[in-house]
Amino acid sequence: MAQVHKYRVKMTCEGCSGAVEKVLNKHKDKIETFNVNLAEQQVKVRTNLPADEVLEIIKKTGKETEHISSSQGDL
Amino acid sequence: MAQVHKYRVKMTCEGCSGAVEKVLNKHKDKIETFNVNLAEQQVKVRTNLPADEVLEIIKKTGKETEHISSSQGDL
Repeated sequence: MAQVHKYRVKMTCEGCSGAVEKVLNKHKDKIETFNVNLAEQQVKVRTNLPADEVLEIIKKTGKETEHISSSQGDL
Repeated sequence: MAQVHKYRVKMTCEGCSGAVEKVLNKHKDKIETFNVNLAEQQVKVRTNLPADEVLEIIKKTGKETEHISSSQGDL
């Protein structure tokens, strides 16, 4: 069942958040939906993937990131 | 023989250029040296890898990028 994983991601401009969006979009076959919030330095991903697999996808961007929490429900 | 590949990379802040540096550092076993220039929107990489393989590494960041040129010599 799909979960919402929440991550802190260090992003300092719209180029940073846009890069995270682009990388997540590359995996949209396995991701239901996501939200990248530059102001809050947060990324939420709704998916069937485990939290650590999504973490590895976000890390590809070269951004500092960490998993905050996972829960059921919508974004 | 090692070549210097030059790329245009869209970077808008130090978070962007830092992310590119971090991803290139992950491949430092195959990269002799590199230079990321935020002001000039340019990345130079000295390596034995072909230009398109380095392009794929840079693309992992989610940044828009294109190969400009390749040449012999130092950075």
